[in-house]
Amino acid sequence: MNNLKKLVGIEAAKFVKDGMVVGLGTGSTAAFFVAELGRRVAEENLQIVGVTTSSVTQAQARELGIPLKDIDEVAAIDLTVDGADEVDLDLNGIKGGGAALLMEKIVATYSKDYIWIADDSKMVEHLGAFPLPVEVVKFGCEQLFRLFDKLGFNPSFRLNDAGERLVTDMGNHIIDLYLEKIEEPARLAKLLDETVGVVEHGLFNDMVKTVIVGRSDNGVKIITK
Amino acid sequence: MNNLKKLVGIEAAKFVKDGMVVGLGTGSTAAFFVAELGRRVAEENLQIVGVTTSSVTQAQARELGIPLKDIDEVAAIDLTVDGADEVDLDLNGIKGGGAALLMEKIVATYSKDYIWIADDSKMVEHLGAFPLPVEVVKFGCEQLFRLFDKLGFNPSFRLNDAGERLVTDMGNHIIDLYLEKIEEPARLAKLLDETVGVVEHGLFNDMVKTVIVGRSDNGVKIITK
Repeated sequence: MNNLKKLVGIEAAKFVKDGMVVGLGTGSTAAFFVAELGRRVAEENLQIVGVTTSSVTQAQARELGIPLKDIDEVAAIDLTVDGADEVDLDLNGIKGGGAALLMEKIVATYSKDYIWIADDSKMVEHLGAFPLPVEVVKFGCEQLFRLFDKLGFNPSFRLNDAGERLVTDMGNHIIDLYLEKIEEPARLAKLLDETVGVVEHGLFNDMVKTVIVGRSDNGVKIITK
Repeated sequence: MNNLKKLVGIEAAKFVKDGMVVGLGTGSTAAFFVAELGRRVAEENLQIVGVTTSSVTQAQARELGIPLKDIDEVAAIDLTVDGADEVDLDLNGIKGGGAALLMEKIVATYSKDYIWIADDSKMVEHLGAFPLPVEVVKFGCEQLFRLFDKLGFNPSFRLNDAGERLVTDMGNHIIDLYLEKIEEPARLAKLLDETVGVVEHGLFNDMVKTVIVGRSDNGVKIITK
């Protein structure tokens, strides 16, 4: 599995050119992309500026010596590469397994080009086997949890390693929804967007046009739409 | 003006009965409602539990000796009374002049009954002369500001008394949109709900069924729908 993640990470790094502002995703697959960029910065004198999507990625990029700017210090982002937890046939996806969905979605929103990298276990017919993360305001989150429960969304608060409710980089909690199958991603996204107390959700509908998939035969497949 | 605010504050307090869990709004008008509840708790032994919508209201209610619980400690809220910055003929409104729109909207969402109090200068044919507050995630807020600017929304960051960007009780910034006239509140609300980086906005559409209006002749008018 790590082989495939590394494979697509390196493949995606080929899209990065000198002078680009590059959005750096979060998670185990994106980490291989960031590592490869670090290698190219060090060994090939690649000239880029990175914009990170989490404190974890920021720490990794700093260690690798990738020059960084805050998202609010750049005019725009040329290309963002990130992982995904599930991708369906329309290239809608679920993200947020790494608890960075809010910053990831903000960086993606202001990126001219946006690519996902994934091993082929992430490619699914329907989204929803992977729990859908929802980032929620702390204030009133118990009420919101009960609302999700009433709606049949099977909610569960994300915990940290200490067994306490996880707090995101933006100071919110995450409620994971165990939905099993999402019949209409657009409809669910609209409902969550309009729900008071929801800061953001892990449905990334219609945001990428390119997914680089690592296949179990160690080939790489580029899916576009 | 303060006379009218006090008048409607006292009028709204009449809706509060023994045993109720009461949502306590924020702002200069709501403060008169909270003051009257405090008086009734002290002088009439009114038995209630308050749920506050801001740190400011929390401080006021504590000083008055109103028993308080956090929103996540109560099963539901029986009645919330709050002010509004503008109210149109359909009882849609703009709130957030006091920078508490997020907590106010969360408390309102979980309230069985919800009443606004206002002096009649707040009653308008169309919303939008009052700037529309939008609570936004700090990360990427410059990018979002530029997006609002491109959309012609005349955005302006809310500043605190020290001239720095205001930080809300929930740790976000506020961007005020100077729209002059909002033709379709429902459409604008949907757009803002779906905008990444927007935590919540000050359009409270179709949320109240009762508005208590203080008129310049010192009469009180109750508008229902």
